[in-house]
Amino acid sequence: MRVLAFLDGTLADPDAAHITVDDLGLLRGDGIFETVLVAERKPRELGPHLDRLARSASMLDLPEPDGAAWERLTRQVIDNWPGSGDFALKLVYTRGREGDPAAEPTGFALGMEIDPKVLEAREKGIAAVTLERGIEPGLAERAPWLLLGAKSLSYGINMAAVREAARRGAADVVFTAGDGSVLEGPTSTVLLARGRTLYTPPPSIGILPGTTQAAVFRGAERAGWTTKIEPLRVTDLPAADGVFLASSVRKLTRVHTLDGAVLPDSTEPHAELAEAYEQVYR
Amino acid sequence: MRVLAFLDGTLADPDAAHITVDDLGLLRGDGIFETVLVAERKPRELGPHLDRLARSASMLDLPEPDGAAWERLTRQVIDNWPGSGDFALKLVYTRGREGDPAAEPTGFALGMEIDPKVLEAREKGIAAVTLERGIEPGLAERAPWLLLGAKSLSYGINMAAVREAARRGAADVVFTAGDGSVLEGPTSTVLLARGRTLYTPPPSIGILPGTTQAAVFRGAERAGWTTKIEPLRVTDLPAADGVFLASSVRKLTRVHTLDGAVLPDSTEPHAELAEAYEQVYR
Repeated sequence: MRVLAFLDGTLADPDAAHITVDDLGLLRGDGIFETVLVAERKPRELGPHLDRLARSASMLDLPEPDGAAWERLTRQVIDNWPGSGDFALKLVYTRGREGDPAAEPTGFALGMEIDPKVLEAREKGIAAVTLERGIEPGLAERAPWLLLGAKSLSYGINMAAVREAARRGAADVVFTAGDGSVLEGPTSTVLLARGRTLYTPPPSIGILPGTTQAAVFRGAERAGWTTKIEPLRVTDLPAADGVFLASSVRKLTRVHTLDGAVLPDSTEPHAELAEAYEQVYR
Repeated sequence: MRVLAFLDGTLADPDAAHITVDDLGLLRGDGIFETVLVAERKPRELGPHLDRLARSASMLDLPEPDGAAWERLTRQVIDNWPGSGDFALKLVYTRGREGDPAAEPTGFALGMEIDPKVLEAREKGIAAVTLERGIEPGLAERAPWLLLGAKSLSYGINMAAVREAARRGAADVVFTAGDGSVLEGPTSTVLLARGRTLYTPPPSIGILPGTTQAAVFRGAERAGWTTKIEPLRVTDLPAADGVFLASSVRKLTRVHTLDGAVLPDSTEPHAELAEAYEQVYR
């Protein structure tokens, strides 16, 4: 089940071809995206997602996205979604066709069912592995052309890392920097619980600011937790009271096993934080 | 002027839409490509290009490309190319549609006219800037999931680097590693001439093995040059007798200005090496 709408407001058949072979999103991974969770027919964190889309566009020198148009598009897909359950809404914005300096960007929103494996992971947790990302301290600020912290369509590395995790018997990845600091997952933000304090690394180290992480933090604060945005070390993870991967569609998924070693049971803090996150939308 | 053919042998209208929005080449930059120069209706270095395509496919865990099918496809586009001049032939191979484990890869060949700016650069040379790529020594071998040395569709960084060069008044980039070694261009291999010896860095440092670089080396050797594949330092570049960027479509383009400083005149070695390269195909 999929629902597709283009930025000009046209609904289209998601099984038909709509993209030319010379779209720079395809030929060069030259574009950006967001994935929004739609729950009970409402898009969660749409404002922060559109803010981040605008930030990514700026980092890639793409024309500034028209926020109101993307909001309409989001509403259009939701209104046309035939199911009643939650779904994922992907917003995609590319540089358009190659070789045409006046090319309009390609923009669409695609509603997609949520992979049952993701739903299962939300409940049961996952095994993850740490993998080096090859980012040294200060690189993101020093070299903005590396697009660290932009949500670009060039996710080949992220996908390869997840395949490497599968080879190692795990479902996901915690990327690490050369200095031993924790970065992010290929499609998620890393959160760590220690007592009733929740931690996540700062975006300045070259990672995406997490929309779901921010929502979990808001919920956790309301539930009496302390939250801290500060650098984390890989060596902090095994002793934590909880290690979590947060993203729109997976919400807060707990990591029960890291690099083959079982982590302390985080069922309780996970349940409390997952509930605190849901409370944000009630 | 463009000519498009798909891997199943069908010719198609390059201005029509042929790709679904959920193709992983588009959504995730999850695929690979090659760009082949077709000169006098012959594809140059097709064997090495197809070998590299197969190598990239292996690095991305894509199904092994059918070399004979890609050769037929190449021939088909050439046979249908309406012009008489040289053109660029892009071979693209993606993981296919998202969410379908049995999805067939998407494969096509697209003949495209050569940008007049590239032709001008072949003759007149270009200004380039050095930009940090954020690769430390040993990373490529240690972390194969970073796909260093694969020609993947996730070229967002490469395109951003070229835009950064433009902001600095230059046309192209020499990527450098954190330890001061020379890597490659965003879409080219770096060559350096010192006397009658031609140098290029080894692919093991995390760069693409260059098909055109290899051809230039063959031609140079026949013309009496010595060739060496060994690490180069950024500090080697200003004093060299020639700094060149090699790629299929630009052939051997000389860098006349680096980071704003005019380099020693390399017109003569360039002319000799360019001729030696052409001799390979006569």
